[in-house]
Amino acid sequence: MEQIILGIDPGTSVMGFSIISIIGKTVNVTVLDVLRLAKIDSHPLKLKKIFETTLRLINEYHPDSLAIEAPFFGKNVQSMLKLGRAQGVAMAAALYRDIPVFEYSPRKIKQSITGNGAASKEQVAAMLSNLIQFKNDSTFLDATDALAVAYCHYLQRNTKSPTTEYNSWAGFISKNPERVTEKRK
Amino acid sequence: MEQIILGIDPGTSVMGFSIISIIGKTVNVTVLDVLRLAKIDSHPLKLKKIFETTLRLINEYHPDSLAIEAPFFGKNVQSMLKLGRAQGVAMAAALYRDIPVFEYSPRKIKQSITGNGAASKEQVAAMLSNLIQFKNDSTFLDATDALAVAYCHYLQRNTKSPTTEYNSWAGFISKNPERVTEKRK
Repeated sequence: MEQIILGIDPGTSVMGFSIISIIGKTVNVTVLDVLRLAKIDSHPLKLKKIFETTLRLINEYHPDSLAIEAPFFGKNVQSMLKLGRAQGVAMAAALYRDIPVFEYSPRKIKQSITGNGAASKEQVAAMLSNLIQFKNDSTFLDATDALAVAYCHYLQRNTKSPTTEYNSWAGFISKNPERVTEKRK
Repeated sequence: MEQIILGIDPGTSVMGFSIISIIGKTVNVTVLDVLRLAKIDSHPLKLKKIFETTLRLINEYHPDSLAIEAPFFGKNVQSMLKLGRAQGVAMAAALYRDIPVFEYSPRKIKQSITGNGAASKEQVAAMLSNLIQFKNDSTFLDATDALAVAYCHYLQRNTKSPTTEYNSWAGFISKNPERVTEKRK
């Protein structure tokens, strides 16, 4: 079954966005782009643009989930308030369409893609190029961040070990018959 | 002409909301209530609830504007990020319906209603009771904050002195004929 993930790296000057579709073990990058917001003077208008763009992507590509890069620490309260608004608006568009939202910290994204939570942006981009085919246009660095969070979500959803996580008791039993010491009558 | 203002005091544990309608110089309080969010575990679900409630109010009452209480300073970056998300989500609902959003700091709201930017919540509530008729239920303190920001917006929109702000050059000329030194031929 095809799985479609919308990745967003929200910001108030640039918003990166990417859509990946997964069939079996093949990951295709359908969308890789940025929304430029720096020239929009009014903060509410920026938020409107973020909302509309996210909603347009959802309506056009029908993603199964939204993965969002969400730093929890920042320079100051002022910048965190603005970032929170940008994040909230992108999330609202997904929640409005009943699409589940998954947040990943920058550290978690780097960790899951390169194995190192302190990796540089360049290291993440280089590793992504090895993992999936996509046109790496240098003007779209924020877009690569959005691709990274989408891919991170794909890895998280697909690397869940069946020996550590179970959806049901029946699933556990079927995979661990030796753990059943006595059958109930 | 009737003017309808939706006032919102967003938060992640309680969101206050109020709708006032103004005909001539009569202000009526149509809605005065709170959305309780504290019991909702998931942060995305809280944001969904804020978005849906704001959108429902807009669809039901067709406000001309959204006035939002927006503190710009807070205890820490963590709480500001969460507050920013709550604000952003409420704003997104209005912007989605093309309703203009106006932000007022707590200080500005207190200043415009009581004349004192450092007034207490109780002083603001008492002054509001003098200015407009509404059922002051003590369990709804956050609702009163939402009413305060809606009323603040009403005052701001209606106390603009025609000698300091003009919508057009023609308006300026008609009110200041002495400033015209020579008519163009």
